[in-house]
Amino acid sequence: MSKTNAGNFFEDFSVGRMLHHATPLTLTTGDASLYRALYGTRYAVQSADSFAQRIGYPQAPLDDLLVFHAVFGKTVPDISLNAVANLGYAEGVFHAAVYPGDTLTSVSEVIGVKENSNGKTGTVYVRTTGSNQRGETMLSYVRWVMVRKRDAANAAPEPQVPDLASAVDASALGKAVPALDIAKWDASLSGSDFFWDDYEVGEKIDHVDGMTVEESDHMLATRLYQNTAKVHFNQHTEGQGRFGRRLIYGGHVISLARALAFNGCGNAFHLAAINGGRHVAPLFAGDTVYAWSEVLDQAEIAGRTDVGATRMRLVATKDLPCADFPYKSDDGYADGVILDFDAWFVLPRR
Amino acid sequence: MSKTNAGNFFEDFSVGRMLHHATPLTLTTGDASLYRALYGTRYAVQSADSFAQRIGYPQAPLDDLLVFHAVFGKTVPDISLNAVANLGYAEGVFHAAVYPGDTLTSVSEVIGVKENSNGKTGTVYVRTTGSNQRGETMLSYVRWVMVRKRDAANAAPEPQVPDLASAVDASALGKAVPALDIAKWDASLSGSDFFWDDYEVGEKIDHVDGMTVEESDHMLATRLYQNTAKVHFNQHTEGQGRFGRRLIYGGHVISLARALAFNGCGNAFHLAAINGGRHVAPLFAGDTVYAWSEVLDQAEIAGRTDVGATRMRLVATKDLPCADFPYKSDDGYADGVILDFDAWFVLPRR
Amino acid sequence: MSKTNAGNFFEDFSVGRMLHHATPLTLTTGDASLYRALYGTRYAVQSADSFAQRIGYPQAPLDDLLVFHAVFGKTVPDISLNAVANLGYAEGVFHAAVYPGDTLTSVSEVIGVKENSNGKTGTVYVRTTGSNQRGETMLSYVRWVMVRKRDAANAAPEPQVPDLASAVDASALGKAVPALDIAKWDASLSGSDFFWDDYEVGEKIDHVDGMTVEESDHMLATRLYQNTAKVHFNQHTEGQGRFGRRLIYGGHVISLARALAFNGCGNAFHLAAINGGRHVAPLFAGDTVYAWSEVLDQAEIAGRTDVGATRMRLVATKDLPCADFPYKSDDGYADGVILDFDAWFVLPRR
Repeated sequence: MSKTNAGNFFEDFSVGRMLHHATPLTLTTGDASLYRALYGTRYAVQSADSFAQRIGYPQAPLDDLLVFHAVFGKTVPDISLNAVANLGYAEGVFHAAVYPGDTLTSVSEVIGVKENSNGKTGTVYVRTTGSNQRGETMLSYVRWVMVRKRDAANAAPEPQVPDLASAVDASALGKAVPALDIAKWDASLSGSDFFWDDYEVGEKIDHVDGMTVEESDHMLATRLYQNTAKVHFNQHTEGQGRFGRRLIYGGHVISLARALAFNGCGNAFHLAAINGGRHVAPLFAGDTVYAWSEVLDQAEIAGRTDVGATRMRLVATKDLPCADFPYKSDDGYADGVILDFDAWFVLPRR
Repeated sequence: MSKTNAGNFFEDFSVGRMLHHATPLTLTTGDASLYRALYGTRYAVQSADSFAQRIGYPQAPLDDLLVFHAVFGKTVPDISLNAVANLGYAEGVFHAAVYPGDTLTSVSEVIGVKENSNGKTGTVYVRTTGSNQRGETMLSYVRWVMVRKRDAANAAPEPQVPDLASAVDASALGKAVPALDIAKWDASLSGSDFFWDDYEVGEKIDHVDGMTVEESDHMLATRLYQNTAKVHFNQHTEGQGRFGRRLIYGGHVISLARALAFNGCGNAFHLAAINGGRHVAPLFAGDTVYAWSEVLDQAEIAGRTDVGATRMRLVATKDLPCADFPYKSDDGYADGVILDFDAWFVLPRR
Repeated sequence: MSKTNAGNFFEDFSVGRMLHHATPLTLTTGDASLYRALYGTRYAVQSADSFAQRIGYPQAPLDDLLVFHAVFGKTVPDISLNAVANLGYAEGVFHAAVYPGDTLTSVSEVIGVKENSNGKTGTVYVRTTGSNQRGETMLSYVRWVMVRKRDAANAAPEPQVPDLASAVDASALGKAVPALDIAKWDASLSGSDFFWDDYEVGEKIDHVDGMTVEESDHMLATRLYQNTAKVHFNQHTEGQGRFGRRLIYGGHVISLARALAFNGCGNAFHLAAINGGRHVAPLFAGDTVYAWSEVLDQAEIAGRTDVGATRMRLVATKDLPCADFPYKSDDGYADGVILDFDAWFVLPRR
């Protein structure tokens, strides 16, 4: 019996199966510093204890995407070691703020399987839950991924495709945000004069700046999250592979786009929910990432007047500035688009 | 009204204007570790709680230049987003020690403006103050920077050039250093047998070692400081720009030179004041930085016998070893010189 | 008298000489995060406070190799600044767990010298001890290194070669591990179903995964450890040197191999002793590291039924997958082998 992990194949995923993932991880201020060094993020709530405490947090929480990446990273050895492609995300909700010193563990439940017509691969749907050291749910999300079969001769399972919400219900958002004293929100310090009330559905914002990615950057990030997907790390094999290059972890692109979005959405301090997300095209070292956003919806949060929710489509591109808001072309996504991310953000209200 | 920050242009700076910069930043042991990983700094006071506590600190303070970069980084979106060149520094004073957990904010006052004769640019002088979460001043310094005009047709303002001290008065230094029990200064652990008393005016010291810089290194550093200057990060645009390359943040060079200076000045544990500084030539990834120092002055600090102040010129070069102390040539700086930095350092006295 | 450190030459090492190394270093959670980002390590005990506390630790200890590198780094300016080659390690013992906030200092005693027949170099043997802020020994090990003579004309010293154990006595191991409640060891969370009892002498394990190293990665690591060996950092001189490249710190290879070994040895949570180690061939940026292990011995630890010791040979290669367990050829090590590391690991018992 081999002591090494060969990962699960499509046949190993049956609906209802629970996967308890290794390795639990205590996130610290060390991770917060590295996260800042990797992306240059500047949202005030996560950046400064004093800013966070003044408005009602016990201390600065960790960046929501750092939490996402840590929870996601653990699932890779069990879910996507034999994946061909990471297809999408849905129903992602950040249930509670995570602080330095909290330890995260991940569990995934298989909620759908569907073999592809070629008989060689299939799509697996999992709902992953990240919990803290007290067993409280911090994050949950669904992702689906195309996974190789161990043996094409094996019979296909009964297809089961989960019915997923096209967007998270805004009324349930904001649980990760304590009641805030918005009068104490200092817009000079937060870097933006624009509050929830100032965004309009249909509005598009070019985030202007670009960030070039180096091999060392994305590997440092992906190891920080204990994500073990081989394609990110091994030039010796990837050099002979599909792209001839190491592929950059898709979550790295989300974090880059989110950091770039500060320029235009500086008060969108909390990523509350992930409605959907697709990695449209791969990113490689040497490419420069740009981003733009479109306001898709504005929603009040039940029982709260301190903060509101703004649904945004966050689009990232490579080597393509976003003044013209590149998105789709006649036959799919426009050239240069690499990420289509649909999320609810929480902003302070006037 | 655009939600993105286009930065200020020369016309936006009027003498007396105060700029309250985003984003406050809590510095932690995570930042200290990254700072060490980026430069390899080895000064004992900042490296070890036990060393610092033995001589009289409550714990190891953060590196002075980490504080400088964090305070400086905040000013970039407001001061130098449209800058052509960072021209100089003066009257920099480190007023108090900054410890892990302290939060820094920055405010700048415009103290001078002078349009250039071409009508397209002008020099802006600002005095920047970095404060902690209790509103105490940690650092103040003047810098001047050449900024583009929004429109060359706009009238020039009345020129006002501040009268800046050529050096900070040494008698006022050392406030960031508690009263030290120098008898407990262990020179084996600090890595140098040379105390304040052992340096002589006119003495030159080659710091011998060289450090090659990678793209990933300087971008990690500059993002850590939340410095958003585009020229450091975007190869897609910089590849078509003036140098065809990303430009390395000048502060990165200062920190490299300061870390290299450990070899020869290992007991110069505290950067107390910046008298002046010029980035003489740009540094690019792949270049190797060397450094040397010249002792310019020796001064007692009023009321103190534990420590003294040594004024040094710290010169950094690229791809040029410093055994011959390269500095100026007939027509300016010698080839290869990239930094001319004039500062007061604090050392223990015998 | 020069203020810079030219390092010691072979003539400077006499048996019995004690070297008290600079700079003491406080290791923090910031260092732990960086260590994870650099290697992607996933051992549960070091990764999560909650996992460590559940089985009996006060909190997650720091990675043993982070401690090793920090202790080792301090010795470089005094021991190996003029080294030609780092020849080997022996009698390494991790005496106690190191936690975030602990400060390490290093002292070395010269325990052997032997001039080479060419008269230009000699081998120096030192026993290095790393202590914490309370003076408790955390780590001790012997290494030997080939050092240049200052002047070939100088007389050779009487050769003295220490008698070194071929392996550390297993009965003395495990002092860095508190009494554990192994019933609370959650194998799902630790990522391996294999306990001490499940390994057999002679068993070989291919760790499968490969990790490509970038210049920035190894320099960040080596600076983090305050290791100042010039060959790792200066492309300007190394470009004209023996390899035309910067050489990667050998300890970086050990850490990479140890992290890769998680896949197959996920419960080998503690490196207890280093029996021997050789850097067989150099590693350069761009190379991909693979690893495999062979179980050399199994030993009970006196008085303990919670954990046992497994002696493993950990072999690292470059650009060479390890399915065939590459090791030695007729005339030495096989092509591609870069590390031969012999160590005791501690694992939980059933």
